[in-house]
Amino acid sequence: MKEPIIGAAVVGQSGGPTAAINASLAGVIGECIRQSGTITKVYGMRNGIEGFLAERLVELNPLFTNEHGLPDEEKLEQLRLTPASALGSCRRKLPKPADDPAFFENLVSLFKKYDIRYFFYIGGNDSMDTVAKLSAYLETSDYEMRVMGVPKTIDNDLMGTDHTPGFGSAAKYIATEMQEIVRDCSVYTVKAVTIVEIMGRDAGWLTASAALPNLVNGCGPDYVYLPEVPFDMDAFFGDVERAFEKHPNVVIAVSEGARFADGHYVGEGTQSGAVDVFGHKYLEGTAKTLENAVKEKFGCKVRSIELNLPQRCASHLASATDISESDLCGEDAVGAALSGVTGSMIAMERVDSPESKFGYRIRYTTKDVSTIANAVRTVPREWIVPENNNVTDECLRWILPLIQGETKPFWKDGLPEHFVI
Amino acid sequence: MKEPIIGAAVVGQSGGPTAAINASLAGVIGECIRQSGTITKVYGMRNGIEGFLAERLVELNPLFTNEHGLPDEEKLEQLRLTPASALGSCRRKLPKPADDPAFFENLVSLFKKYDIRYFFYIGGNDSMDTVAKLSAYLETSDYEMRVMGVPKTIDNDLMGTDHTPGFGSAAKYIATEMQEIVRDCSVYTVKAVTIVEIMGRDAGWLTASAALPNLVNGCGPDYVYLPEVPFDMDAFFGDVERAFEKHPNVVIAVSEGARFADGHYVGEGTQSGAVDVFGHKYLEGTAKTLENAVKEKFGCKVRSIELNLPQRCASHLASATDISESDLCGEDAVGAALSGVTGSMIAMERVDSPESKFGYRIRYTTKDVSTIANAVRTVPREWIVPENNNVTDECLRWILPLIQGETKPFWKDGLPEHFVI
Repeated sequence: MKEPIIGAAVVGQSGGPTAAINASLAGVIGECIRQSGTITKVYGMRNGIEGFLAERLVELNPLFTNEHGLPDEEKLEQLRLTPASALGSCRRKLPKPADDPAFFENLVSLFKKYDIRYFFYIGGNDSMDTVAKLSAYLETSDYEMRVMGVPKTIDNDLMGTDHTPGFGSAAKYIATEMQEIVRDCSVYTVKAVTIVEIMGRDAGWLTASAALPNLVNGCGPDYVYLPEVPFDMDAFFGDVERAFEKHPNVVIAVSEGARFADGHYVGEGTQSGAVDVFGHKYLEGTAKTLENAVKEKFGCKVRSIELNLPQRCASHLASATDISESDLCGEDAVGAALSGVTGSMIAMERVDSPESKFGYRIRYTTKDVSTIANAVRTVPREWIVPENNNVTDECLRWILPLIQGETKPFWKDGLPEHFVI
Repeated sequence: MKEPIIGAAVVGQSGGPTAAINASLAGVIGECIRQSGTITKVYGMRNGIEGFLAERLVELNPLFTNEHGLPDEEKLEQLRLTPASALGSCRRKLPKPADDPAFFENLVSLFKKYDIRYFFYIGGNDSMDTVAKLSAYLETSDYEMRVMGVPKTIDNDLMGTDHTPGFGSAAKYIATEMQEIVRDCSVYTVKAVTIVEIMGRDAGWLTASAALPNLVNGCGPDYVYLPEVPFDMDAFFGDVERAFEKHPNVVIAVSEGARFADGHYVGEGTQSGAVDVFGHKYLEGTAKTLENAVKEKFGCKVRSIELNLPQRCASHLASATDISESDLCGEDAVGAALSGVTGSMIAMERVDSPESKFGYRIRYTTKDVSTIANAVRTVPREWIVPENNNVTDECLRWILPLIQGETKPFWKDGLPEHFVI
């Protein structure tokens, strides 16, 4: 354990929003305020590293400190239950330190200007890449600073951690909406197929969550199709036929990233072909493509639904487990940095815990971020049934603890009141 | 007040599901059980009048009566918080009695077979048409029976009642999701337009509700476009331009029924042209059409979102006011029938009530159903701003009381547990 450095901290958020990313922010802010003997100040960078470069900083201590100099728990709780990134976000990819040392020299001059000794970055895969590059550069620099990543992504596709903050809330929302949609679709006797498209480009964790109502209430989608295994149109038609033998209302969940054996996305037909700055393809229309295919094949009523943005921002239905874990990840990042850790991400380890309801407990640890960035964790093959049209109960039992518990939004005249920084 | 008739009751649900239609069912069932001295039995018809014709009846008393012969309040509460029609639904349009008396003679023979003297039908416009035709026929018959309609529709487009059961819950869901989407869209600095499509073919009440967060939290969509006024593409482009002057993230709510001055739907380009049995056009793609138009005009990032089915089935976010009013509508239908009313719909009247928070109280009454069926109630012109791109605060203040209060789903292992009949 190294000596803490006395100086300021800066915290930022990056990548797509989640319902829990502000809980991690609250965790960082609260612990920084508690450690104000060492951490003299905590700045928020607006719009991630991009805003930091433009010196768009906001002092967070005055916003979240009560009259006793302690964290204002009510305000932090309201921040925890506010969706999306309260500090704003960005999708800026940093250069490699060897390619552009001037970029990093400029960054360090800004750290010096504000006496920043602690850097906390809350985000997913691309954000951990930022943490890795920055800490790699700092190793070659004489400026002493500690850089910590706090994981975040609804996709649950980060390596090195049992699961990611934000996933549990998205899974709870998806599972709840799927169950409500199944109930809605069950009211008519006319043959109909409803196809629900779920987020997740390469990892099927969220689509798998759509099947949770089957485990809990015996009332979920007939099939779920993940991007981890090839999608076969004829097999799919066969699945729909078999489901019609059981009931007139067939409900299907499909990942936006479902693709054929040749690697082409199912939804590619209606795509723009555009890519984002990280080279990811924008996808849309997987469910729409299947809607048209089913309509043509079966001639029955077909409806496609994209759960869309609410999957990542429906904090009114957040998982209490997820919010609490996300908060602790933020808090532990501060603790780890104070004890000398740098270039690392907070990770969760699942510990067998026979005394708890789902045999589930989490231990918080740190992982070297260079082993995590730019890799994708997918649903294991053995958790997908051999027919490639569902997940196993073992998979669902693994997800189930993550959606436990409900939060209570700050209701104001019938609507949640969010915390705006 | 006439004498009650001793005999059985039958209750059915018809039309599209809502998050509150089972609350009205619970109201009917509970009151029938309480009145079991007169109402000997309460049957549910599966899939509305269509299931009744096939004698698909279920005895509800055993399911909802406790050991003291009273309504089982816990089961009724679980039913209230179950989305969609627990008895199933249909979209069967009855013939006119004069055109097909044999159809009605058959119906009456079934009523006689089960000794049914009370008929309760929970539904929207088309369902009230069923109530009107059946009671008109019964006036010419010697079979004494009382026929009552219980209003239901998320669209809030029924005449004769201040608002409709189901609307408040849909409005609460839409307003909450809109606020979360606005927060989600606010995180990036890149210019972007997000277009959210809201249900409502002819009436813009639900789309208007999307603006509630502006009134409550100052954080809602930039514009809302209702079907009541013509949609003008150039004016829309001008609106987007003006919004970009204020902030980079423009969020818009548009009704699925938005149409141009010539009467063509905005989303008509991507429609199938199919109509349902009532001759209503199926609409889809209003937001998608606008997405493409904005992309072409501004070249910026554009996203379209359809809130889709969850608008009518998201009972996890029901309005407590709506659930309670829906329940009372069902209960009062039984009371009215017992006191001799027939051929009528339960209606709500808004009573000024200065002592309550929103100056709001409801008085329950009955309306002759023949004055209600097949007419549509739209948002008054004076509640839409002259520029046709928003609603007035007066409109929002009128909606606001209807979304007050939250319900508590029956949580089971992290998901709501629905009541399945």
